[in-house]
Amino acid sequence: MSIDVTILGCHSATPRENAHPTAQIVTIKNHTFLVDCGEGTQVQLRKYKVKFNKIKHIFISHLHGDHFYGLVGLISTFRLLNRETELHIYAPKGLKEIITLQLKVSKSWTQYPLYFHELNAAKSKIIFEDEKVMVSTVPLSHRIYTNGFLFKEKIGERKLNINAIANYPDIKICDYQNLKNGRDFKLENGKILENKKVTLNPPKPLSYAFCSDTEYLPEITPIINKVDGLYHESTFLNDKENLAKTTKHSTAQQAATIAKMANVKQLIIGHFSSRYKTKDTFLTEAQNIFKNTVLAEEGKTFKII
Amino acid sequence: MSIDVTILGCHSATPRENAHPTAQIVTIKNHTFLVDCGEGTQVQLRKYKVKFNKIKHIFISHLHGDHFYGLVGLISTFRLLNRETELHIYAPKGLKEIITLQLKVSKSWTQYPLYFHELNAAKSKIIFEDEKVMVSTVPLSHRIYTNGFLFKEKIGERKLNINAIANYPDIKICDYQNLKNGRDFKLENGKILENKKVTLNPPKPLSYAFCSDTEYLPEITPIINKVDGLYHESTFLNDKENLAKTTKHSTAQQAATIAKMANVKQLIIGHFSSRYKTKDTFLTEAQNIFKNTVLAEEGKTFKII
Repeated sequence: MSIDVTILGCHSATPRENAHPTAQIVTIKNHTFLVDCGEGTQVQLRKYKVKFNKIKHIFISHLHGDHFYGLVGLISTFRLLNRETELHIYAPKGLKEIITLQLKVSKSWTQYPLYFHELNAAKSKIIFEDEKVMVSTVPLSHRIYTNGFLFKEKIGERKLNINAIANYPDIKICDYQNLKNGRDFKLENGKILENKKVTLNPPKPLSYAFCSDTEYLPEITPIINKVDGLYHESTFLNDKENLAKTTKHSTAQQAATIAKMANVKQLIIGHFSSRYKTKDTFLTEAQNIFKNTVLAEEGKTFKII
Repeated sequence: MSIDVTILGCHSATPRENAHPTAQIVTIKNHTFLVDCGEGTQVQLRKYKVKFNKIKHIFISHLHGDHFYGLVGLISTFRLLNRETELHIYAPKGLKEIITLQLKVSKSWTQYPLYFHELNAAKSKIIFEDEKVMVSTVPLSHRIYTNGFLFKEKIGERKLNINAIANYPDIKICDYQNLKNGRDFKLENGKILENKKVTLNPPKPLSYAFCSDTEYLPEITPIINKVDGLYHESTFLNDKENLAKTTKHSTAQQAATIAKMANVKQLIIGHFSSRYKTKDTFLTEAQNIFKNTVLAEEGKTFKII
C-alpha cells in the first residue's frame, strides 16, 4: 500500500492554461483528501477523474487566492450534483464567512451538511483522526496565517501467519481478531502462546507532509521528521533568494535543506513562480542538497512508499 | 466598423474542461467590456489573447456562481500584475461585500482604483455613458435579481466629403471639426453652404444586447427592439420547457421568439445546459422561429454589423 498524491495544480499566483494554482489529492487508506483548492480545481478534478463524492475532507493551508478561490465553485457544484454526503473543511478563520456570504447572496445554500473547522492554533495540532489515519497541522510562516498538513497512517493490525496458525488446532476463526490486536493465546492445555509466534508485524505506517506556503522554516523539521513524502513549496530559485525572503516563500535549495534536516524519504517540490519557463534548474538546485527530489507535475500521481 | 463579441464561456452551471461558464468580451468603439466572469475567465482571457489592461469596465448580470466566481481571481491577478488603471464593476448589491471581504482576509488590497457601481433598479437604466457609447440595463426575471445589458453606439460625427470640399477653397482644415459636427458653412461671399453638400452621413450606430439568465420575458422586447445583435440564454430545449419555467431559464425556441418579437438582426444563443451533448437541436429549434440564429462557441468572435 502507498499514500498517493495526485497533483492538480503546482504553480503559484496567477492561473494559466497549463499552470494551475495549488490543489492536490492525498489518497491515504480509504480517504480521498483534497488539499488546497485554487481557481479551476473542480475542472482539474474532472480532468484527472477524481470522483467528487469521495471527497469528504478539504484542508486549506491559507487564505491567499491561489489556494482557495476554487472552493466556492466546488461547493456549489456539489450542490448542483445533488450531493448528500457531508463535507468537512479545515481552514483558517475567515473562510466560513467568505463561503457562507456567497451562498447567501446567491440563495444557494447547500442541501448537504457542510462543516467548517476553524484553524487558529500556533502549534501543531491534530485536526482529524479515525482508526486508520491522523492529520495534524504544520504551522508555517507566511505573510498570513498558514498551516501545512501532516498525514499519518496509524499502525495497523498484526497480520495472521496462517502457516503458523495451522500448527495450533485450538485456534478458531473467532480468535483471529484477538490475535490481530496483538493478544497472546491461551491453549487448551493451559499454556500461553506468544502472539508473535502466529502473527507478523503490520506494515510500517506511512506519512506525508504538505508544506506550502512558507518561508524557510527549520522549526518544522521535528514535526515532519522522517516522513516518507514531503511536498515543500519552492517558489523561487537561488537567484531570487532575497525575493523569497521578502515575500515569505522558499527557494528550491531551502526546500531541499528542510528535507535533508528532517531526514525525509522523498521530496516533491512545487508552487513554482510563473517567471521561470522551465523547471530543470529547480531540480538541479534542490538535488545538490537532497538527492531524492522530484518536481511536482500536473496530473501526476506520486506513490509515497 | 462592428461590435465584436468574443465568447469566453457559454455554458451554464458547472465548469468543465471545454465548457466554461458565462463570460464574454464586447469590443465597442474603443472599449473592451467584460460581461460576466465565471470561474476560469482569467485563463480564457489569456487563451484568447485579450489584453488585461484594456478591461476597464466589467458588467455582472447576477450573483449566481457561474456568472461571477472568476471575478475575485481576476481582480487579484490584476493586482499581481501591478495594474494601475482603474477598474469599474457594475453588479447587483452584494458583490462589493463579497470581493472586499476576500481581499481583506487575504490582506490583498488592490493598489489600483477599484469602483463598484451597485445595480438595484427594477427598470432599464443608463449605467455607463461617454461620447461614443451608452450602456443600459435590461431588467430580466430570474431566481435572483438579474440584469442584461444593452450596448449602444452613439451617432458619430458626419464624414467629410473630401471631393466635394475641394470645390470650396474657402474651407480650411480648421473648419473641418465644425463640418463634422453638422454645422453649415458661411462662404466668403456671404452665402450659406449647407452642411450636407460637403459631408456624408455617419455610419449607422450599432447595438448589442446581452440577456442571461432569464425566464421567457416578452417585456424586454421594447428595450432591445431592433438591436443588431442579441445574445439570449437558451439553457434548455423544448423537451425541458417545464424545467425552464421552474428554474427561470429559457428554451432555444423562447430565445428565438424574443428575437423575432424584438425584430433583432441576429441572435446568438448560449448558456447551454451540460445535459445536452450536442448543440445542433438548439439551433434547429431556434431557427424554426428565427432564421438568423447562431450558436455561441467558446473562442469565437461574432461581428455585429
